[in-house]
Amino acid sequence: MAEEVKYSDLEKAINTLVTNFHGASADKGPSLKVDEFKNMLSSQLPNLVKTSGTDAGFGEVLKQMGVKDGEGITFKNFWSLIQNLATSQYGLLSHEKVSKCSCIVL
Amino acid sequence: MAEEVKYSDLEKAINTLVTNFHGASADKGPSLKVDEFKNMLSSQLPNLVKTSGTDAGFGEVLKQMGVKDGEGITFKNFWSLIQNLATSQYGLLSHEKVSKCSCIVL
Repeated sequence: MAEEVKYSDLEKAINTLVTNFHGASADKGPSLKVDEFKNMLSSQLPNLVKTSGTDAGFGEVLKQMGVKDGEGITFKNFWSLIQNLATSQYGLLSHEKVSKCSCIVL
Repeated sequence: MAEEVKYSDLEKAINTLVTNFHGASADKGPSLKVDEFKNMLSSQLPNLVKTSGTDAGFGEVLKQMGVKDGEGITFKNFWSLIQNLATSQYGLLSHEKVSKCSCIVL
């Protein structure tokens, strides 16, 4: 009962998602500034989110996340992006025709 | 251009969520059987999801995930659980009164 708590890979993954978003905010406020989120995208999602490096591409990502012009990025906005990425990765996995699935997306 | 692709912690975390769910299905079908999901909960979410070890507790979790009686657990159901866990962890983090946030939930 007094043993150290061990966390599973799945629990650590949830923690990574949450702390990444939280850590990206300099003032630890309820939302990220656009520039903070831009930095987060390029450092943390360089392979999964392609904005073509343009403002227009970046604006398109924000729009898909439900972010309105001039507003910050809330955890809810961020989560809708993560959900899209996870759902499409799951789609890739489950449509694989390989009989022995190696279960690796990345 | 020909360099090996490096994935960030955030990208790996998304991958972990997706492959855990996919890997829990013996037949790699579109949904998990109730027993498969039960095993996944106890092995992968022992700290974050408490079912009190009873069938009633487990049934309550399924209900919150939108799983209907007799149905399997889809990725969408699974994701609604992950979303709840992540959102409540984010809530814990962002309501911390500590001025220097260590950004660790687990």
